[in-house]
Amino acid sequence: MAFINDHFLKLQAGYLFPEIARRVNVFAKEHPDEASRLIRCGIGDVTEPLPMAAIEAMHKAVDDLASRETFHGYGPEQGYEWLRSAIAEKAFKPLGVAVDKDEIFVSDGAKCDTGNILDIFGGNNRIAVPDPVYPVYVDTNVMAGNTGNSRPDGSYEGLIYLPCTAENNFVPELPQERVDLVYLCFPNNPTGAVATKDELAKWVGYARANDAILLFDAAYEAFVREPGIPHSIFEIPGARDCAIEFRSFSKQGGFTGVRCGYIVIPNQLMGRDSQGKPVPVQNLWRRRHCTKFNGASYIVQRGAEALFSADGIRQTNGLIDHYLCNAEMLCNAFSKVGLRVWGGRNAPYVWVECPPGLGSWEMFDKMLHDINVVITPGAGFGSKGEGYFRVSAFNSRDNVEEVCRRVQKLFA
Amino acid sequence: MAFINDHFLKLQAGYLFPEIARRVNVFAKEHPDEASRLIRCGIGDVTEPLPMAAIEAMHKAVDDLASRETFHGYGPEQGYEWLRSAIAEKAFKPLGVAVDKDEIFVSDGAKCDTGNILDIFGGNNRIAVPDPVYPVYVDTNVMAGNTGNSRPDGSYEGLIYLPCTAENNFVPELPQERVDLVYLCFPNNPTGAVATKDELAKWVGYARANDAILLFDAAYEAFVREPGIPHSIFEIPGARDCAIEFRSFSKQGGFTGVRCGYIVIPNQLMGRDSQGKPVPVQNLWRRRHCTKFNGASYIVQRGAEALFSADGIRQTNGLIDHYLCNAEMLCNAFSKVGLRVWGGRNAPYVWVECPPGLGSWEMFDKMLHDINVVITPGAGFGSKGEGYFRVSAFNSRDNVEEVCRRVQKLFA
Repeated sequence: MAFINDHFLKLQAGYLFPEIARRVNVFAKEHPDEASRLIRCGIGDVTEPLPMAAIEAMHKAVDDLASRETFHGYGPEQGYEWLRSAIAEKAFKPLGVAVDKDEIFVSDGAKCDTGNILDIFGGNNRIAVPDPVYPVYVDTNVMAGNTGNSRPDGSYEGLIYLPCTAENNFVPELPQERVDLVYLCFPNNPTGAVATKDELAKWVGYARANDAILLFDAAYEAFVREPGIPHSIFEIPGARDCAIEFRSFSKQGGFTGVRCGYIVIPNQLMGRDSQGKPVPVQNLWRRRHCTKFNGASYIVQRGAEALFSADGIRQTNGLIDHYLCNAEMLCNAFSKVGLRVWGGRNAPYVWVECPPGLGSWEMFDKMLHDINVVITPGAGFGSKGEGYFRVSAFNSRDNVEEVCRRVQKLFA
Repeated sequence: MAFINDHFLKLQAGYLFPEIARRVNVFAKEHPDEASRLIRCGIGDVTEPLPMAAIEAMHKAVDDLASRETFHGYGPEQGYEWLRSAIAEKAFKPLGVAVDKDEIFVSDGAKCDTGNILDIFGGNNRIAVPDPVYPVYVDTNVMAGNTGNSRPDGSYEGLIYLPCTAENNFVPELPQERVDLVYLCFPNNPTGAVATKDELAKWVGYARANDAILLFDAAYEAFVREPGIPHSIFEIPGARDCAIEFRSFSKQGGFTGVRCGYIVIPNQLMGRDSQGKPVPVQNLWRRRHCTKFNGASYIVQRGAEALFSADGIRQTNGLIDHYLCNAEMLCNAFSKVGLRVWGGRNAPYVWVECPPGLGSWEMFDKMLHDINVVITPGAGFGSKGEGYFRVSAFNSRDNVEEVCRRVQKLFA
């Protein structure tokens, strides 16, 4: 008989966003008159048109496929050299970070990469995740059999949770116990927190001292505007010995529907086999990538490349400005009604403490029913997210202005 | 310390195609005068422009992303409903096969799907693969820890190999022992063999009797032109109880560089948990797909949809005609010089027996050096591929005519 992967049965019922979608659908059916008033600040999905540089490049790429002379079939699994060179030159060099183009692996998105990376690691690692956390880090570990069963609060046995709280400004402290793999995400999803160079240097020091590897999710780095806040873990000396970085064009260039991301694995990064012998991690990933992936779409890679042109950079900055201005307006609106607010600077997410006495799903329902605004309940991101909610700044200006007005009214 | 997945260390050095690329590069460097004469019939990559229907649809899709009103961000992970409906209506209904659109999961390609499918199965299955075999089936099982070590002939302990030989016309017989997961691929890569309804019915009967699941790779189904040769495993009664089908737009529409495929998992397909309790396989895949994948590119899905328009179908058929005609010419050329030939009808691959006394890598080197034609040595696909080579019909007409002339000359 064909046996399934039993670990899947440990997964808790709903991935967060389907559950939100379900509640919104029920509401819309029960209140058809209010359905058209709904404003979605839940899922972190971009709303604004793509930078024109990407549009033009993708039109040209489509045309390339229309004639034999310029046709492109299978590309290199790792991504075209011209895109990887552009990334090294334009995304890292300006930070003072030397990344070789052969350390970059282009993919169809950071969600895939953060999930798939577990393929190359063993089942005997102690794994640390932030709490609250992007659910993909946790669920993919459950699927891979790296956890025990779930607990009543939604956490899983066997994972080490790093509390991110108002007390530590949502930047986790080093664990007391030894861990082998650590997920870090800055600017953070869901809290919008950023880490300073000193804070990241502590983590790099920890990883080097403990032969651990940091899985650094920098999907939101384009939102960092303040000097001194790192865009890349590789701005920290020593990080090349102990970190993998995940990046995405989804938020930088509005590519959530276009699909492109990449991962950086330094040449010298070593894992250990079960005998303790060092093994270059990049070789494993290259083998995985070439065997289970067939390259990102040629059209999409041309679009991504164009984001690094002079026009592309200017247009991308305009896009980020738009969302950052939204975030600032949302921060102000929630502050003004007396709620405590984090994030929303150098990040597209605003993290808000619920009013006294309300749990985060209660606050979700209240916002949905009373002012027809969809937010994400913090508890959906982990037990330490209880008592908070996330507001996404990915929206049109009109919608954000309207949300601000409604929030003002709700708490008037 | 961060432990790697030790199973990766069992993998043999070269994935087949990188090794071929390496030998071709060495040759080109050593014989720069002959390099421009090289004709590649190795890797199965399309060469002809995309159907105009797909080009037009993708231009329109790019334009959709240029304005807020028609913008698309994250799509449904499973694929847009309009594409899944088109697949159900146009790819299956004409075969007399009822597939519900919710049984279809769109992805960025069949290579990813055939690799990723193992995520949802347990480590205690007895797994059968054809020999010769598309290397991805084997290597992904090695990575997942479903095999033992490799043997000197390149096979892996723990896998059950199903010999495909001239005697069985390259359609494997049922195994003597019980197996739980069986990979089948028709039209076959690499041999170009097709299976009749009766032959597939035997496999469906076997799977149902043994509670096994067939992983049916139909990536090349568009090349089937003879009536009576199934395009889909679901043309066989009972297959919905025991099969998953993998499909691709890569060869149908020339999408190798565009990237789109899909998988069909019938509602009623059951696996077993370790207690033997039935579990719907589709639910597991949906969870996997939603957690580790973020949907195929909107642009690409619009291109795939257009392949099912009236124009798209006509243009796609023209593309397939072109490659099938190439295949026929190659079959004839190799037959004419006295070699035994299989495949090349209802399939884009021609499978040729090496001349007496030559191994398949020797034949590779001979073709490369003597007539500057790149083929794929059969031994690269498994021990039963030794003594054969694969010739890909994916090429321009000019190149195929030239290959035929050179083959004629080589054996004159």
